[in-house]
Amino acid sequence: MFQSFTATTRPDQGPPRLAALRAEMLKAEVDGFLVPRADAHQGEYVAARDERLPWLTGFTGSAGFCAVLPEIAGVFVDGRYRLQVKTQTDTDHFTPVDWPETKLEDWLIAELPGGGTIGYDPWLHTTAEITRLEKALALHQITLRPIDNLIDAIWADQPDRPDGAALAYSAELTGKTSGEKRAEIAALLQEAGEAAAVLTLPDSIAWLLNIRGADLAHLPVVQAFAVIDTGGHVTLFSDRTKFAGLGPDPDITLRDWSDFEADLAALSGPVRVDRATAPHQVRQVLDAASIEVSDGADPCLLPKARKTAAEIAATTQAHLRDGAAMARFLHWFDETAPAGGLTEIDCAKALEGFRADTGALKDISFDTISGAGPNGAIVHYRVTEETNAPLLPGQLFLIDSGAQYEDGTTDITRTLPVGDVGPEERTAFTQVLRGMIAIHLARFPKGLTGRDLDPLARAPLWAAGRDYDHGTGHGVGVYLSVHEGPQRLSRASDVALQPGMILSNEPGYYREGAFGIRIENLVVVTEAETPQGGDAHREMFCFNTLTYVPIDRRLIDRDQLSPLELGWLNTYHKEVARRISPLLEGPVVEWLARATAPL
Amino acid sequence: MFQSFTATTRPDQGPPRLAALRAEMLKAEVDGFLVPRADAHQGEYVAARDERLPWLTGFTGSAGFCAVLPEIAGVFVDGRYRLQVKTQTDTDHFTPVDWPETKLEDWLIAELPGGGTIGYDPWLHTTAEITRLEKALALHQITLRPIDNLIDAIWADQPDRPDGAALAYSAELTGKTSGEKRAEIAALLQEAGEAAAVLTLPDSIAWLLNIRGADLAHLPVVQAFAVIDTGGHVTLFSDRTKFAGLGPDPDITLRDWSDFEADLAALSGPVRVDRATAPHQVRQVLDAASIEVSDGADPCLLPKARKTAAEIAATTQAHLRDGAAMARFLHWFDETAPAGGLTEIDCAKALEGFRADTGALKDISFDTISGAGPNGAIVHYRVTEETNAPLLPGQLFLIDSGAQYEDGTTDITRTLPVGDVGPEERTAFTQVLRGMIAIHLARFPKGLTGRDLDPLARAPLWAAGRDYDHGTGHGVGVYLSVHEGPQRLSRASDVALQPGMILSNEPGYYREGAFGIRIENLVVVTEAETPQGGDAHREMFCFNTLTYVPIDRRLIDRDQLSPLELGWLNTYHKEVARRISPLLEGPVVEWLARATAPL
Repeated sequence: MFQSFTATTRPDQGPPRLAALRAEMLKAEVDGFLVPRADAHQGEYVAARDERLPWLTGFTGSAGFCAVLPEIAGVFVDGRYRLQVKTQTDTDHFTPVDWPETKLEDWLIAELPGGGTIGYDPWLHTTAEITRLEKALALHQITLRPIDNLIDAIWADQPDRPDGAALAYSAELTGKTSGEKRAEIAALLQEAGEAAAVLTLPDSIAWLLNIRGADLAHLPVVQAFAVIDTGGHVTLFSDRTKFAGLGPDPDITLRDWSDFEADLAALSGPVRVDRATAPHQVRQVLDAASIEVSDGADPCLLPKARKTAAEIAATTQAHLRDGAAMARFLHWFDETAPAGGLTEIDCAKALEGFRADTGALKDISFDTISGAGPNGAIVHYRVTEETNAPLLPGQLFLIDSGAQYEDGTTDITRTLPVGDVGPEERTAFTQVLRGMIAIHLARFPKGLTGRDLDPLARAPLWAAGRDYDHGTGHGVGVYLSVHEGPQRLSRASDVALQPGMILSNEPGYYREGAFGIRIENLVVVTEAETPQGGDAHREMFCFNTLTYVPIDRRLIDRDQLSPLELGWLNTYHKEVARRISPLLEGPVVEWLARATAPL
Repeated sequence: MFQSFTATTRPDQGPPRLAALRAEMLKAEVDGFLVPRADAHQGEYVAARDERLPWLTGFTGSAGFCAVLPEIAGVFVDGRYRLQVKTQTDTDHFTPVDWPETKLEDWLIAELPGGGTIGYDPWLHTTAEITRLEKALALHQITLRPIDNLIDAIWADQPDRPDGAALAYSAELTGKTSGEKRAEIAALLQEAGEAAAVLTLPDSIAWLLNIRGADLAHLPVVQAFAVIDTGGHVTLFSDRTKFAGLGPDPDITLRDWSDFEADLAALSGPVRVDRATAPHQVRQVLDAASIEVSDGADPCLLPKARKTAAEIAATTQAHLRDGAAMARFLHWFDETAPAGGLTEIDCAKALEGFRADTGALKDISFDTISGAGPNGAIVHYRVTEETNAPLLPGQLFLIDSGAQYEDGTTDITRTLPVGDVGPEERTAFTQVLRGMIAIHLARFPKGLTGRDLDPLARAPLWAAGRDYDHGTGHGVGVYLSVHEGPQRLSRASDVALQPGMILSNEPGYYREGAFGIRIENLVVVTEAETPQGGDAHREMFCFNTLTYVPIDRRLIDRDQLSPLELGWLNTYHKEVARRISPLLEGPVVEWLARATAPL
């Protein structure tokens, strides 16, 4: 199993560790210390040695941070973790803070009325974050001081850095050699008048070098930093032994972690650094060496997001394989759930089992969200032994999951009825489905961003006075991160959609304490042909479908669908049957035929 | 008639005037002079004395400018005027320039390779415009010099400033006294830490003082400048005699145009000036007097855009009256057009006649766009005796028009068949109609902007590979400007929609050389009640309809409509009949019943 359902922390571990940290703060002569959930690569997943926040506080959520002062330790968590933080931390010693409603700077100003010095590890915070904080605190006699990590000083059995070996990733799957990619990035830098760029995101480095790794759960990357210059030469800073299996490349220089700062200080500028993702220490080293810094996004982000034809072909295969595993799971669910006795964990385990049965599963792409009834309404619910709920007749069951295969990354949500469900649930499900279909059917002019399309997915819910408090979709990689930028289907996204970008299409509806609904397919932006009668001069894009898995027909109120929407649904199901049936056998094939029959 | 169809300029007048201007340029020691279409109030309509651009060049379009250099005079016009500029100007002496594709700064840099000095009238250009130009030209040895207007120096029979009398506008129609409005603006300035604001937009001043005027065609304002301070006191700079009929008000000080600069120089700062709309001379006077300037939008814009309940009630009456006039016109059209012989001008005249017959018509709100067949595809077509086309059987006829009544401003477009039209036209009309219905049906969360809703109106066209190259809607005033900001339904609009804002809803489709389709209703943003089953905590808005006029049923392909869309259409038509029939008589009532019968 790639997913664990057991608690990894205990609330009673926190207080002595907090006391030890405060002793270190005294020694370091700071009035506070920041403990983020982040590592130096600002990724969604961190290695065991970087789990400083749960080690200190007990809180294991995927976002948040702790600000420790002499008399108070605030644990800042967002809406999805308000309950969890109270069960995981000792609230006599840790104070949950509603974030982002309460900003760190405002909390510090309130708690330190006389001012003070806050220590932070400059590897774990971005330049954007530190700059914003410093500006907000400047008038309040609170200064930030970069120092060695105080948690590392007291964490006796802190794990080592991960040492997963780097593996070559075939250019047949990527469609471009690393040399071609490096030349492309070098040209971008030349055009921008920059001499080099610092790369700190492991998935950018994995993409650039056509490698994958095993340092983290769910994300097949190698932890490293890199510098690429205008000659396309890359210097890699990591543990050299991890790269031993790759063989030498004259255009790649291997260096140690410990060489990074000195090598940065020896660069010629201008050096591009992404202030939104790079550790502030990178900026400080360059500034101290008087090297010109050019603010700009990680140059790999956009080229990585525009998948090649080979990547689309590869991930199409991954999605068919995953679709077959999902079909087996849905068949099993239909056979098993109505009898009662299934729990959320049973379902998550069964699904991982069907994926493992493909023989191709490298990992799951994130911890499965498996929520029955009211748990389905918790958008980022992660089932544990403590919360594990039975699936009761009449409930909706929401399962959001994904896989990492060598040829692609999947992410799919289906909402299923446990036996018969009521008309309320069917009405809401159909509204969500109509929003999802609107994105599938969308054709749109070149230049539009995710922000421009996001309302199409919401309009059917808006009409009913409803909405959902998350974006409609996120970017997805190919055997890389299941949450990949810069593209998104979201009000917050001003990145123009371009052919090859993979996005999730996942509207939802959540009724607190009752049920949650989400339906999610992955799609890829594609150039649209001009239909008969269309304006020949308009360059337009559309979304091609990657995910082929039945959408539960029992939850659809056919009368709510327009002819166009019904046509999409029936055509989609016909394609599901055509593509997935050949990968299935016996009773599952028969089940699939029923599940994809025209409505 | 408020609209004229005759040419007001001749191409042969241009060359001698251009020669005279160049002689003035020599005297003023400048290498160029800018002749914008604007006046000091940056309005859509200008007084006769401000028609400098057509006087010099012959070009009468509603946007554009001329840049005169010793050897070349560029007339910058946008896509809608590319043909018109060639017929109205003597192209041996004037050179049409494609704008905004070619920017003024790039053209100047190309035409003045050795650099030079460009004169401009600082009353006719905004600070934003001059600042942008100066920045772009700085590296190319081209400087801008504010000078007296050189056209005024050579235009012997230049008309005087308009002298229309200011009239009190009833607080019953506005729902707020001028005192209340001034207190509201004063509070805004206090909150912003500003001592005063300069107002240069006549419709802001008309709104603030509850007055209307007669200085311009189509826009019932008084030309003036104003300063409002944090005590709510207003100093008005204009022609005092225009205000003689209003009686004294202790909180309004009347001054002359000629007092404006000296009074500005005596202000205490910070003074808010809208750099996007105020003449650059205002900024220069304040800077020269070392008065602190605060950049900020005209403080009247947003309060003016949020119409009061009284304003909505008033304009509702205006729209019913206008709807009855439109119904009479449509009935007349159906009786007359099929026989042949009607021209575009006939239709524009007939419509103005039906509006005049109401006895309440103060003016038309803009020159009627009356386009048959291919002329309908010219988005801002303005028919003249030269272009006047007959309405031929089988064509579409597009008519976009509006009225100024004392209780409201209207703007409506209908597209009509001349006899039987083909399936192509009906398909396109139905696509446009579906987009328009999407806006009418939209419910949306508080905080959304016009940009967020604009795609809803386009999606049906996008699906067919089509689109339109204009916004979906613009703000509209109440017995003020038919084009009013800051709200818009447009990709370019980031202004949150708020209750009381009036917008046009006017998607279109244009096939060059063949036909044009546009359907336009006005709507008003309104708080939406939570429907049964909706989320009680979500604050949502919707659009209430102001325009009640039949949409031609013969052009609608019923099979393309979803049940929801068909439901909207039939409900709308039922409301048209219910509200407008009582204002009509005899055969028009019978015609209306047929035109609004359920589809």
